[in-house]
Amino acid sequence: MRPLPSNLADAPLRILGIDPGSRKTGFGLIEWHRSRSRRVASGCIRLPEKMELPQRLLTITAELEQVVQEHRPDCAVIEQMFVSNHARAGVVLGHVRGALILSLARLELELFEYPPSLVKQTVVGTGRADKQQVSHMVKVLLNLTGLPQEDEGDALAVAITHAHLRNSPLKAS
Amino acid sequence: MRPLPSNLADAPLRILGIDPGSRKTGFGLIEWHRSRSRRVASGCIRLPEKMELPQRLLTITAELEQVVQEHRPDCAVIEQMFVSNHARAGVVLGHVRGALILSLARLELELFEYPPSLVKQTVVGTGRADKQQVSHMVKVLLNLTGLPQEDEGDALAVAITHAHLRNSPLKAS
Repeated sequence: MRPLPSNLADAPLRILGIDPGSRKTGFGLIEWHRSRSRRVASGCIRLPEKMELPQRLLTITAELEQVVQEHRPDCAVIEQMFVSNHARAGVVLGHVRGALILSLARLELELFEYPPSLVKQTVVGTGRADKQQVSHMVKVLLNLTGLPQEDEGDALAVAITHAHLRNSPLKAS
Repeated sequence: MRPLPSNLADAPLRILGIDPGSRKTGFGLIEWHRSRSRRVASGCIRLPEKMELPQRLLTITAELEQVVQEHRPDCAVIEQMFVSNHARAGVVLGHVRGALILSLARLELELFEYPPSLVKQTVVGTGRADKQQVSHMVKVLLNLTGLPQEDEGDALAVAITHAHLRNSPLKAS
């Protein structure tokens, strides 16, 4: 995906992290300024189990667009898909990601992606960290009063990863 | 996906068939009236091999939305995904389908899907027909002067399938 222009390096950067899923999509928006980050907004979009796919995609994208319009991030970052042997689950997740990427691209947000292992490596220090460790480090790094929900924590972790890596050669292209 | 209202059974029905792909997406719009169908428009949206995913999704959906705005179909029908062992290819195709489904749902088109084997069964008479047989039968059924391109033919075949099956219990839900 497209690189971020670096001429605004000293301006605060608003990064929207997304952990997409067909039932729960976490989002976490942070502001990064002079090597410090704070949470602006975060949460989890939950959908009923039986909702049909078109309605599901309409709902997820509409809710996330509302977050974008309210908080005006500079870019969005999404976890890269881990292609597993669970072909069917991967297909549904692919549909959700495709709809989200379309919706964010239409809002002219720059898009980045990072593999889950790199997110864990950046936030916890090891690519094999579990979700609890990620939530804990997100709480510490953002100085939150409580632990974020799992998907919310993952989304914030993706945003933090981009804040740290965006000027390094490891950034997703 | 949602069933078609049947109170307009005698009105001409415009059906947009879609055969989605990450490089080539076929579309075929037919008008079905009193058990006869004619082609209104069809073609193939081709994308450069190296285009990035967000741009790819923006382009496919913009082109298909132009077809919808020009020809005003009543519904859209998309081939169901065959989940194979090619997990990575399936993931990319899932993204394209997700973006297309979002885009068509936002245009308030009713959406249907059928498995490829049912499309072949309906158009050729056997679920194991090859692409050439499908193209040939599409040419015959729509009284075309030449053979459609493969993806265009598949998209027209999906539209024809919906015309034939939409009032039967086999229709996709």
